[in-house]
Amino acid sequence: MSADPSPSQPRVGVWLIGARGSVATTVVAGCAAMTAGLHPPTGMVTETDLFHGAGLPALSSLVFGGHDTVDCPLPKRAEALAAGGVLPHSLPSAVAAELAAADREIRPGGPAPGDTRDSTGLIETFTADLRDFLHRHRLARAVVVNVASTEPAPTGSELPASSLYAAAALRAGCPYVNFTPSTGLHHPALQDLAVSRGLPFAGRDGKTGQTLLRSVLGPMFTQRALSVRAWSGTNLLGGGDGAALSDPAAAAAKNAGKERVLADTLDTVPEGDVHIDDVPALGDWKTAWDHIAFDGFLGTRMILQTTWQGCDSALAAPLVLDLARLLARAHEAGLSGPLGELGFYFKDPLGDGPAALGEQYAQLARFAERLRAPAPSEPRGLPGEGR
Amino acid sequence: MSADPSPSQPRVGVWLIGARGSVATTVVAGCAAMTAGLHPPTGMVTETDLFHGAGLPALSSLVFGGHDTVDCPLPKRAEALAAGGVLPHSLPSAVAAELAAADREIRPGGPAPGDTRDSTGLIETFTADLRDFLHRHRLARAVVVNVASTEPAPTGSELPASSLYAAAALRAGCPYVNFTPSTGLHHPALQDLAVSRGLPFAGRDGKTGQTLLRSVLGPMFTQRALSVRAWSGTNLLGGGDGAALSDPAAAAAKNAGKERVLADTLDTVPEGDVHIDDVPALGDWKTAWDHIAFDGFLGTRMILQTTWQGCDSALAAPLVLDLARLLARAHEAGLSGPLGELGFYFKDPLGDGPAALGEQYAQLARFAERLRAPAPSEPRGLPGEGR
Amino acid sequence: MSADPSPSQPRVGVWLIGARGSVATTVVAGCAAMTAGLHPPTGMVTETDLFHGAGLPALSSLVFGGHDTVDCPLPKRAEALAAGGVLPHSLPSAVAAELAAADREIRPGGPAPGDTRDSTGLIETFTADLRDFLHRHRLARAVVVNVASTEPAPTGSELPASSLYAAAALRAGCPYVNFTPSTGLHHPALQDLAVSRGLPFAGRDGKTGQTLLRSVLGPMFTQRALSVRAWSGTNLLGGGDGAALSDPAAAAAKNAGKERVLADTLDTVPEGDVHIDDVPALGDWKTAWDHIAFDGFLGTRMILQTTWQGCDSALAAPLVLDLARLLARAHEAGLSGPLGELGFYFKDPLGDGPAALGEQYAQLARFAERLRAPAPSEPRGLPGEGR
Amino acid sequence: MSADPSPSQPRVGVWLIGARGSVATTVVAGCAAMTAGLHPPTGMVTETDLFHGAGLPALSSLVFGGHDTVDCPLPKRAEALAAGGVLPHSLPSAVAAELAAADREIRPGGPAPGDTRDSTGLIETFTADLRDFLHRHRLARAVVVNVASTEPAPTGSELPASSLYAAAALRAGCPYVNFTPSTGLHHPALQDLAVSRGLPFAGRDGKTGQTLLRSVLGPMFTQRALSVRAWSGTNLLGGGDGAALSDPAAAAAKNAGKERVLADTLDTVPEGDVHIDDVPALGDWKTAWDHIAFDGFLGTRMILQTTWQGCDSALAAPLVLDLARLLARAHEAGLSGPLGELGFYFKDPLGDGPAALGEQYAQLARFAERLRAPAPSEPRGLPGEGR
Repeated sequence: MSADPSPSQPRVGVWLIGARGSVATTVVAGCAAMTAGLHPPTGMVTETDLFHGAGLPALSSLVFGGHDTVDCPLPKRAEALAAGGVLPHSLPSAVAAELAAADREIRPGGPAPGDTRDSTGLIETFTADLRDFLHRHRLARAVVVNVASTEPAPTGSELPASSLYAAAALRAGCPYVNFTPSTGLHHPALQDLAVSRGLPFAGRDGKTGQTLLRSVLGPMFTQRALSVRAWSGTNLLGGGDGAALSDPAAAAAKNAGKERVLADTLDTVPEGDVHIDDVPALGDWKTAWDHIAFDGFLGTRMILQTTWQGCDSALAAPLVLDLARLLARAHEAGLSGPLGELGFYFKDPLGDGPAALGEQYAQLARFAERLRAPAPSEPRGLPGEGR
Repeated sequence: MSADPSPSQPRVGVWLIGARGSVATTVVAGCAAMTAGLHPPTGMVTETDLFHGAGLPALSSLVFGGHDTVDCPLPKRAEALAAGGVLPHSLPSAVAAELAAADREIRPGGPAPGDTRDSTGLIETFTADLRDFLHRHRLARAVVVNVASTEPAPTGSELPASSLYAAAALRAGCPYVNFTPSTGLHHPALQDLAVSRGLPFAGRDGKTGQTLLRSVLGPMFTQRALSVRAWSGTNLLGGGDGAALSDPAAAAAKNAGKERVLADTLDTVPEGDVHIDDVPALGDWKTAWDHIAFDGFLGTRMILQTTWQGCDSALAAPLVLDLARLLARAHEAGLSGPLGELGFYFKDPLGDGPAALGEQYAQLARFAERLRAPAPSEPRGLPGEGR
Repeated sequence: MSADPSPSQPRVGVWLIGARGSVATTVVAGCAAMTAGLHPPTGMVTETDLFHGAGLPALSSLVFGGHDTVDCPLPKRAEALAAGGVLPHSLPSAVAAELAAADREIRPGGPAPGDTRDSTGLIETFTADLRDFLHRHRLARAVVVNVASTEPAPTGSELPASSLYAAAALRAGCPYVNFTPSTGLHHPALQDLAVSRGLPFAGRDGKTGQTLLRSVLGPMFTQRALSVRAWSGTNLLGGGDGAALSDPAAAAAKNAGKERVLADTLDTVPEGDVHIDDVPALGDWKTAWDHIAFDGFLGTRMILQTTWQGCDSALAAPLVLDLARLLARAHEAGLSGPLGELGFYFKDPLGDGPAALGEQYAQLARFAERLRAPAPSEPRGLPGEGR
Repeated sequence: MSADPSPSQPRVGVWLIGARGSVATTVVAGCAAMTAGLHPPTGMVTETDLFHGAGLPALSSLVFGGHDTVDCPLPKRAEALAAGGVLPHSLPSAVAAELAAADREIRPGGPAPGDTRDSTGLIETFTADLRDFLHRHRLARAVVVNVASTEPAPTGSELPASSLYAAAALRAGCPYVNFTPSTGLHHPALQDLAVSRGLPFAGRDGKTGQTLLRSVLGPMFTQRALSVRAWSGTNLLGGGDGAALSDPAAAAAKNAGKERVLADTLDTVPEGDVHIDDVPALGDWKTAWDHIAFDGFLGTRMILQTTWQGCDSALAAPLVLDLARLLARAHEAGLSGPLGELGFYFKDPLGDGPAALGEQYAQLARFAERLRAPAPSEPRGLPGEGR
């Protein structure tokens, strides 16, 4: 379904914050694998009929780069992921050239330990990196996507790292996606700037596993008028995310998103906690157990339990590619500001959209329709909201 | 939310086939409990805002009766259910009068072993029972609901028992709901008659547990473009239903409905079997385990498992009350033929409606709207489809 | 199997610390129910063949009393437990006399809020209560069993409440069982005294659910030479225990016992955390989920998950009765000091006994043999059955 | 721990029936991997301290061969298993030489479709194959192990294929292990011959997953005097075994062994069925779900559920190597007849040994002791039972 990039199709940049992490590596390797026809586009909603004719950039037109504070080259990272069963074993060698190409476009992130640059200096450097990327590859545009490890909720007024990257994206005129619960654009110092720059943005915190399930199970209970008494959950995961989220401050940011889904779909906050445990033995594999105690007719006590065993990178990567394409197209179409219609992808979506997955999907379908529609009076795109 | 029955509000009959079973007993006891304010209407969708102002008959206006082939009086059956934890312990005594009243309206079903009456004779008797019920209680109408044990799929041309009752409902001018996978109206000899009689009907096989879950999980996989490879399920249940479904022929009818949900929401039939085990130790409690193997991005293998522990009668009873009210109101509004908009309630709904629960809920909301709308030109009801 | 109490059989006291809690109420009601022949002795190991002829006091010879800081009378507490499904519904009325009798033997515990008595004063009062109980009922002996809510690990040198009761038990010459992870006798100021008094004691922390399972699963992995990488667990429970254990300090004491089982049976401490969540909606019902990641041949990753749904009081009560009888008999037989052979019953057993349940059971069988054997030459040793 | 084979240590044959199946391939590849130091001996009980000094043949002294009716060469089969995640990805190439060597020792099995040889002819051919193997490699002895797909229970008097191979083992003087529920030596025509030949044998049906768990959980319930009401199970597996066991006759043989464990450890046969579903999407991975309904104190209903996710070949292979070594050593030590002490390894063990895993492990320890003991008066081995 992916349109062949015609020679004239403009190339589109995807700039990943956390460009050497598991998710980013899977994004780059997976895009190359699909472009080469090695794998079907499983998990990519933008490759389904829903987006037929919506003018999204072809996968083959995407050019990858990004920031990271670690050094491990992408080809080596991909080998490690394949050894852990996260990537198909033969994939790293099959797409070695594409991994190496993306690796050459990764610039040092920050602040690194001992970094003497202040916030302003870092933003300037990051902005310059982005502009250089756009320029050298003659890109029509580049979307910045934060897929770095979750950072603790900021305590002072200083901009956290995720916001420095977001500020650079704004300066460089790039649409921005926050796939994590970190602050990013969600900072008083940046929000207005984002809107005034006329850039579209989306977030936050990709909905990949337990919360995805909750967004279909919560509405089920509500629609059936069943009364949820307690909803408890435990997540076991290794990899970088497990370690990052064993920090209670980081976990707090994550859990807020998870609870919002229940509050919004159940119209009440049931009893129950959510735990995120770092279990290095599980590597990139994640197990989420949910226990839901609910009352049925005449107060009869019933229980639903779910166990979700997935690979976090494999769940996240197609959504990241979806979002990069959607934001690129939205930018092309002249849309700006928060894209609330992308709640389908997020734990804690921007705006007041629905929390039930089915309704979010319907909203996404309407968004596709908007992208598809011709924009009669304006040559550059759609009559977007908030212009 | 339940409207008080005004003195002038007509009384509506609910005639239960299998009137001494667990579901029927829970229906009668539960309706009395809610009318008396002893329990909130948990599990009843018709008591939510969705049906506000839709003109449904009040719970207090319902009069119960039915057919059964067994003798155990309802009050005694209710005691047994309370002992098994299916009904609140104090409920049978609290609603003893209502149980006794309903019990007096139960007539012998058939064919009983050694019954010498032929099909025609049985239909006549059942019809006379219904007419007598309508007459003695001066009912505006009565809805016939089949909640009897699942019967094996019929092999010959002879009408199975469920169809005899359905035929009697048609003759007596009663709307009909098939809450089981049995044949009922779904027989070549009856279908045309149903339509020509101008009666509304609905079915079949109430969606209470495993299939309810499947109707929200199936769409989730599809909407996320995840590829389901195998969907396996095991149901453990005691009670009458467990024993009935240990008959492979009866189970086959049940499983067809379960598989239809997957086929319709996944656009493919995945590998995997469904088992229904009779486990008398579980009594009316049902445990359903589902194991779903799916592929994510780049073919990564992932697993979702669900365990649903519920009480079948408590899950079914509020839906039976919902359906009785909805069919009564539809009849009053002049609707007739298959009510495809009630797919929300059924494993194997009539017509070509959506299989995803969220879409079925939206359809139900539109149905509520239809019931709510005034019918300007027609004195008897709404401008129903298919009249 | 329970021997009829002959008219001459001495009566034995069971003095419960936390005498108005769920466990104590279930102990008293259950003992009366079994004595009356209303229920079989399910869950009582001392009623199996293993203890045939071991001279244990008959259930009908037990007299109950205890300390508690709350006022709710036992009959009322029993009604509440029956309403929550923890006790059979008709039991409270069937054993109302026995509940009332035990309730009359409950004395105020301490320190209560605002209590002006110091430790010495409290110990004296508790000792006097015990002596009065022994005297008034002309008891051969009384066993003190701590079934109170888990207290936080003590921080200073002061004796925590559980140790005040333990000190009183020693002073009054009573064998002592610590069924909780609280300090009790496990305090430097008390340990020597216990031994010098010639009293038997046992503990600590009854092994009722998740740890029971771990004590059979851990050895399975070890015996099969499978390598456990991570063992994670979540416990959901309401009731008093859930609230007490939501205090991290109390939970820490509990979890130490749970981890000891793994360390002892696996010869290594695997990765993984244990959570104890307070979920009031679950009442006395407890759900424990365990996730075990292990390596098989050639490093193949495998997973075992267990979900245990039990009623804590019903799991604990028969063990409490077992232990009271065993300690009474041990005392009669002249045994003293820590009874390491009772590791079968505890999460964190005294001494260096085995941690695998099967070996603990074999050890318990040898203990039964010891109780059974005549002690020919020693006046203080085991006088055989039926003295 | 594996002793280095001294130059003088005799070489020992392992002759696998079903030599090109998943289990056999994993056995050959795994033995080579451990010998080369590529993997630790996880899952091999004979490499633990239990067998220290018991004189077992070193892994490096084993020579592999066998019969099979399929042609796929072992190296190719190993590649397929690695692609499915059953073997480590790099293993097939690392042990290519050993796989090829074993492959050269695989002879055609039978009867193949259209085979004109009768039973006698087939036995003769198989015997000749074995003798040739022993002779060409100058083996001290060879152990025949049946790891072929489960065959349907035989209906007539004719020897099933598994028994033809067993008869050939007897003729060639080889100890025999039946790792499957197929008939093998368990046939009236062969049993006496086995004993009269003075050969040791063991079986049947390796205890690898669900039954392993049941053999520790069953005793737990019994030892705690908890009353199991119903034990239900579902197994999902692909691979050859899934397909073979979708034949109800083959499944019946398998399930008999599973049920025996419950009957023996619970002293009663609880309600509940066992299903074995063929789910090709799972490949060699097996998921077993067990649901156990039990009564506690005062009849309180409780539930334990277990989900076991393992790789069948990886679970079976180390046990096959264990058994081959144990039978070789038993043969060397002069033991003969059924080795009931190996019940640790089997679902349906020979003889009247214990069914609880812990007791079976203790029995295995005593067997190790027997192998260890010097045999003073007899030069060839131990004074075995039944000689």
